Formats: sequence, structure tokens, C-alpha cells
Amino acid sequence: MDERFKKQMEVSLEIDKEKNVFRQTHLSGNGRNENDAEHGWHVAIMAYLLKEYSNEPVDISKVMIMCLIHDIVEIDAGDTYAYDSEGLTTQKAREDAAKERIFSLLPEDQKEELIALFDEFEEYKTPESKFAHAMDNLQPLMLNNSNDGGDWREHGVNREQVYGRQSKTREGSEKLFELTDMVIKRHIEKGNIQ
Amino acid sequence: MDERFKKQMEVSLEIDKEKNVFRQTHLSGNGRNENDAEHGWHVAIMAYLLKEYSNEPVDISKVMIMCLIHDIVEIDAGDTYAYDSEGLTTQKAREDAAKERIFSLLPEDQKEELIALFDEFEEYKTPESKFAHAMDNLQPLMLNNSNDGGDWREHGVNREQVYGRQSKTREGSEKLFELTDMVIKRHIEKGNIQ
Repeated sequence: MDERFKKQMEVSLEIDKEKNVFRQTHLSGNGRNENDAEHGWHVAIMAYLLKEYSNEPVDISKVMIMCLIHDIVEIDAGDTYAYDSEGLTTQKAREDAAKERIFSLLPEDQKEELIALFDEFEEYKTPESKFAHAMDNLQPLMLNNSNDGGDWREHGVNREQVYGRQSKTREGSEKLFELTDMVIKRHIEKGNIQ
Repeated sequence: MDERFKKQMEVSLEIDKEKNVFRQTHLSGNGRNENDAEHGWHVAIMAYLLKEYSNEPVDISKVMIMCLIHDIVEIDAGDTYAYDSEGLTTQKAREDAAKERIFSLLPEDQKEELIALFDEFEEYKTPESKFAHAMDNLQPLMLNNSNDGGDWREHGVNREQVYGRQSKTREGSEKLFELTDMVIKRHIEKGNIQ
């Protein structure tokens, strides 16, 4: 095996570890906690199914690969819950170190390509990254809604926190934010969001 | 919510169930059994990382969405182990019924689009479907190899069965088949494949 191919196969095996990174979100039917790999799969398919609702035209191939790789850094950095204010202060440093270690396993050109995609996602500026983020927000909201808001109740999350994160969905999709807003209001009324 | 959007969100939630369909393959590090959603995620990323090894040029967006959706039918039909000859005789009928039920939840145009993608994958004729299949074969082989061939030993799988499935990787990628062949030969020598 040549060096390039060997590196690509090493990364292919390394990312298997993402299946052991568990999130705060629970599967529908009040199931177990979801892991990052499952989340990435779900978000990528939803991006494909809902692409017509992006505010701006998107390169769906780019959106999908962003969705698939955006949590790879959590193999080292762990999942930081969206409403964990302490964890959020160290998140960037932990994720930067992870990004360097994991993507450096790739051949140089692919390292650069994947880091560029990851950074574009994080920077939240292009139509693709905004739509990918909208999916990254909508998918756990949808699961949590299907479980009667249990994840919000469990963590005592309040409306400012939920809107702080979810209102950014509007930048990627006005249509999906309308649904998001409707779901949040319902759970505030029910007392699931404080 | 309009009818179209409602249907798209229903499907988005319905496919969550794929995370409860477990396969015979084990995660690296002698981990637990893998589920279909994780497998789909892994296969789609590998397709992206290894696309230069496709025998023919491919539309990678099409390959990725094929990889992501190819096991959705198993929500109803269950996973059929690649070397379960009894299960394989009823697999097509079970999967056809599942395909009709699940994709019919979508708006008509998307139902047609996803069924066409699923059928293209199954028919194994286009460059995209051949490369997607190569990934679908390589990913469990890679995991199983990392676990010293435990999945083959557990099921007493023989070389004809392994080559029967894995030799089709050659149709999608000669390069990836060279690796596959090397791995299989090593496990025959070690006695992990009969």
C-alpha cells in the first residue's frame, strides 16, 4: 500500500470512534442517547430532503459533507452540550487541537480540504454553512419535540438559551425557523422550557 | 404547516428508527454491534475520502446520498446478514414492501427520486452504484479486520462466501479490491476465514 492510500485508510478507521461520542439528545420513542455518527447521518439526510428551504441556493454535496464531518473533532474533544456554559468556554481550544491531530492523519491536500470545510462550517458565513447549521439545530429539536421536550426538562433549559441557539436557524432557512419557533413556543407553554 | 413540509418532517423523524437496526459488524476496538445509521454515515464519508479510487468518474453527491439512504428499508425489513443464505431468499420481498411504505411518506416527487436512487444502488450498474457498493463492502471488512476477523470467526464464514460478496468491490474500484483481497488472504491464512 502506498503512503497516501495508507493514510486515507487510517483516517477511515480512526473516525469509527465518533460512534462512541454520546450526546444529550435522546432518540425518538424516548430511546437511548444519540451518538455523533448517528447525528451526522441524520443531519446529512435531512439537508438533502429539506434543501428547497434554504434561504439561498446551496451546493448540496458541500452541505452533506459538512454535516458528516462537523463532529469528528469530538472524538478527542468530547460532546459539549449546547447549553453547558462552562464547557463552551474551553470548547474552541479543545476542538482546535482535535482538528489538528485528526485531520493531520490525512494526506496534505485532503487535510487542507477537510479543515477548510470544518472552518467554513464553524464560521457560519456561507449559504452552505448556514444551512448545515440549520440542520444541526433542527434535528435535535425534532427528536426532543418527539419526546415531549424531555431533554430540555432534564437540563432545566430556559427560553433565552433555546432561542440563543435556535434563532440562528433563521440565517439558513426562514421556513425552518418558523417551525422551530412554533415548537419552542409550544414547549414554553407546556412548561418544558423555563 | 403545509402538506408537503409536513410529509418531509414526518419522514425525517421516521428514519430515526434506523438507529435501532443493529448489524453483525462490531465497532473497532472490539466494540458493540454497529447500527445501520452509523454504518451509513461511515460509508458516506469513506466514499468522499476515497473517491479518487473509483474505476470511473462519479457524481460524489449521488454516491453519498445513496450511501446514506441504502439501508432505510431495514427499518421494516431488518438487517440481513451478508452470509445468511436463508434470510437472503426473502430479503428482496421484505425490502420492496419497506421501500414502498417508507418512501410513500414523502411528497410524490421526492418519493420517486429516492426510490430511483435506491433502485439504482440495488441494480449495481452505474459508476455511482458500483462505487457505493464498494464502500458498503469495504467498511465492514475494515472494521472486522481491525478486530482480527472476529465477525467471520463468529459466523464460521468461508472463503467462497467472503469472495462472493467482496469480489464485487472490483467493479467499483480495482484499487480498493487489491486491499480487500490482501485482507481476505491474511485472514484465510490466520484461520479466521474457513
